[in-house]
Amino acid sequence: MPVYADPVDGLAVSADLLQAWTARLVEALGSPEDIAADVAEILVASDRRGIASHGTARLPNYLALIEAGVMDPAARPVADGGRPALQRFDARNGWGHHASRVAVDAAIDAARTLGTATVVLHGSNHYGIAGWYALRVAGEGMIGISLSNTSPLVAPTRARAPMIGTNPIAVAAPAGRYGTFCLDMATSTIPRGRIEVAARRGESLPLGWAIDADGRPATTPEAALAGALHPLGGEESTGGYKGYGLALVVDMLTGVLGGARFGPNIVGLFSIEAPSDLGQAFIAIDPAAIDGAGAFEARLEGYLDQLIAAPTAPGAPGRVVVPGEPEADAERRAAKSGIVIDPVHARSLADLGATYGLPFDVAGGPAAASRG
Amino acid sequence: MPVYADPVDGLAVSADLLQAWTARLVEALGSPEDIAADVAEILVASDRRGIASHGTARLPNYLALIEAGVMDPAARPVADGGRPALQRFDARNGWGHHASRVAVDAAIDAARTLGTATVVLHGSNHYGIAGWYALRVAGEGMIGISLSNTSPLVAPTRARAPMIGTNPIAVAAPAGRYGTFCLDMATSTIPRGRIEVAARRGESLPLGWAIDADGRPATTPEAALAGALHPLGGEESTGGYKGYGLALVVDMLTGVLGGARFGPNIVGLFSIEAPSDLGQAFIAIDPAAIDGAGAFEARLEGYLDQLIAAPTAPGAPGRVVVPGEPEADAERRAAKSGIVIDPVHARSLADLGATYGLPFDVAGGPAAASRG
Repeated sequence: MPVYADPVDGLAVSADLLQAWTARLVEALGSPEDIAADVAEILVASDRRGIASHGTARLPNYLALIEAGVMDPAARPVADGGRPALQRFDARNGWGHHASRVAVDAAIDAARTLGTATVVLHGSNHYGIAGWYALRVAGEGMIGISLSNTSPLVAPTRARAPMIGTNPIAVAAPAGRYGTFCLDMATSTIPRGRIEVAARRGESLPLGWAIDADGRPATTPEAALAGALHPLGGEESTGGYKGYGLALVVDMLTGVLGGARFGPNIVGLFSIEAPSDLGQAFIAIDPAAIDGAGAFEARLEGYLDQLIAAPTAPGAPGRVVVPGEPEADAERRAAKSGIVIDPVHARSLADLGATYGLPFDVAGGPAAASRG
Repeated sequence: MPVYADPVDGLAVSADLLQAWTARLVEALGSPEDIAADVAEILVASDRRGIASHGTARLPNYLALIEAGVMDPAARPVADGGRPALQRFDARNGWGHHASRVAVDAAIDAARTLGTATVVLHGSNHYGIAGWYALRVAGEGMIGISLSNTSPLVAPTRARAPMIGTNPIAVAAPAGRYGTFCLDMATSTIPRGRIEVAARRGESLPLGWAIDADGRPATTPEAALAGALHPLGGEESTGGYKGYGLALVVDMLTGVLGGARFGPNIVGLFSIEAPSDLGQAFIAIDPAAIDGAGAFEARLEGYLDQLIAAPTAPGAPGRVVVPGEPEADAERRAAKSGIVIDPVHARSLADLGATYGLPFDVAGGPAAASRG
């Protein structure tokens, strides 16, 4: 996921206060306390990690779904078939974040005895950043994989219409002195949010990001927003069919396997027309099954040592990066100096707080003040 | 994998005769009959599917490994730890094809009762096309995933030296009237073989395929062969760090998890300096665990119906392709009219046959003759 630069005219807020406020707000929207705690933790984790597009900035969208009766804020997921290492849960149209936390914990539990386990969800909603669930598994010393299908925004290779989601793949693992390896990527070249940023900044687009409504390369953000994203790899000649194939595989392991919606049948995640009925999948793999706790992690750490020592290409902005390093840096900055949110984001949360009698009083405190 | 156009000056050979001849040759190299049968089936499957780079054309390379004492043609894999759903086998430096066939069958067996299972291999060698093992799982009605690490040929994003393999990902699943879905892709933009083809044809290279020895974009095949491949996505600005991350994840789930070599520590697959000690991983996922045999396959078929009906982009050479269709077409052509191998390939096999008293008499027959 792209870590966005902090907005220059932003407001520094305390991450912990933002999380506590978010939990109270989600309770006010009709969620039991434990569900609200999951939602708040996962939304604010996105803000902490510099992924403003998937965090508390989305609260007004979720509120709209709940008010329209299209998402049930109190629903609890239920086990819904499977075998010991491949289980399905029905999220019953509740918060995707909570159902996914329950599902990934079930995968971790089963992997402890079986070595690996997969849990798929159907009837789910947007679950925020894919990486959070993979990191949850890595926190238990295992390799975690998190997959979700999403709104159709990507044109398959050779097509001119969006048919497939930006279907993310996240993989995390404990990595010794590197903390946690965490690859968290959309299977499109770039996420739609990156094009929205380009639109606000008046930038043109490089080839390989998107096509326009007629299926030709989009050179402006406006043309891209009316068209479709390219799968990872861009044009067919540069391997775009691989990104298309990967997006399809994510859909196969989530919506198609779990019996949720998939591909062009998914209603926009924040559309109030109908429930999203998304599919997600969580895989936990316990390396301790193979050769003792710590051996895998030591090998991975040694590998990363080799990679970051690689000679760099001319013009490279720095050494080779370990997947997850930029997000972990953002998380450390947020803990020290607060999360910097942009004025539109801040105002939308203040408005929500006013509506629900929960003043948005999360700025200030020594950490935030020292930054602002 | 790229399906190469048939060579114009090629020799049509009967696929079945080629497979029988290959099995006898592999026995002559010191492999027991059942191991030789696996190797021949998997090598010729590559030729049948139009992937000449991974089939019988490699026999002289394997022979060199065996003659140098660097690979053991008679070794049998042994179970080497794990738990019910995550098992490890030691390939004991035998044929990668045979050890992988044993490993993937173990994953299928365990998935029948557990829902999903993963088997990792260490001490292995080149296993041919990744897709064969995923197809083996799909033939049992399950979703199959096949992963391998390989020789370091890819430069991580920002690096100028090759540090990671082209580490393939193959995923297959039963797909109703589409036969079998089979994505079989290197995590580099293109495989090294594609650059070798460009060199023979005197072509220049598009941006995003490779870098030269100084880390700058390679525009000629010669510069690329002296440098390194780009990961899928190409440059950092077009998502190359995602392809780098995926290649690293494949290595994590194979070499790092299984305790084999990984990344820059892998000796070239066909180098006679030392054993390769590759890692592979095979995952079987049984959709029948979730909602009854056939339900998953019907959903996937319906999804593919939607995708191939998508309106096409201007200049597209045809409709949207289902991953695996080009290879399945090549397989049908091979069954009907034989496999067309190029003169260098034909001569190398004839030479091997002469050495081992096995005349390379696989051309002719009505099918091959009707084509030639």
